[in-house]
Amino acid sequence: MELSPESIRKQLDVWPVARLATQGLNGSPHQVPIVFVGLGDCLWSPVDGKPKRAGELVRVRNIRAHPTVSLLLDHYDNDWNALWWIRIEARARVLEPSEPRGDAAFQAALAALAEKYPQYEEVPLLQDSPTLLVFDTLQIRSWCASSSAA
Amino acid sequence: MELSPESIRKQLDVWPVARLATQGLNGSPHQVPIVFVGLGDCLWSPVDGKPKRAGELVRVRNIRAHPTVSLLLDHYDNDWNALWWIRIEARARVLEPSEPRGDAAFQAALAALAEKYPQYEEVPLLQDSPTLLVFDTLQIRSWCASSSAA
Repeated sequence: MELSPESIRKQLDVWPVARLATQGLNGSPHQVPIVFVGLGDCLWSPVDGKPKRAGELVRVRNIRAHPTVSLLLDHYDNDWNALWWIRIEARARVLEPSEPRGDAAFQAALAALAEKYPQYEEVPLLQDSPTLLVFDTLQIRSWCASSSAA
Repeated sequence: MELSPESIRKQLDVWPVARLATQGLNGSPHQVPIVFVGLGDCLWSPVDGKPKRAGELVRVRNIRAHPTVSLLLDHYDNDWNALWWIRIEARARVLEPSEPRGDAAFQAALAALAEKYPQYEEVPLLQDSPTLLVFDTLQIRSWCASSSAA
């Protein structure tokens, strides 16, 4: 069965992690867990200061080449009646404003991320080159094992 | 930093859920959470009796067309020093033996799944047409936020 629209809205607000799948340059999918925040009609995810490999991130390179991505929010539980997932097909953009302080949408997303994740009091929210990924929803599908899930 | 080979082996044995990303017919990635078991050099995942939509599953259709997939095991935690992930690029196959009872590898995978997931005492491990997905590892990458993760 599907989750209710209310449950989907709530989880997009509070669920802490999504798995982002992008299309690799050779077509094969690439996945990485991401933090995100829902704001307006979009989801936003920072290229943050958690330790990363040097060079442009694979997710950023892939989005530049193929912007259609998949975002998966899901709950695993030993009680299989509690399982649910929300899958979002989205069009992704890489935001790298030259003047981030003057970009109101960019600043609003940063504020929402800092509010959702107190961990950003210690971890840098952005790297040297301020970058956010923005996801415009194309389609949402959901599944839950029972009406008591989510 | 990367997880140790011992940590990767252990998590492939005990971690209960992976996210499977396949390449859709239009190239865009498709994701779904799966249960799995590691056996021999492969991972195995059943098309099990959890409620599903009718018709051939998208993951099965995608694998038939594009067998290279991504499997992601990851741990989210409010303590960001505890974050880790294991990403497996794999070649997937759809196993649908006409005589599953006579297929030793198929039966061994079913036994390992039943042992890992006691939930299969109540949920059917297979649907009417016995089907397992098998994943041959092509490459494993991992990441952890600190040496205390995993």
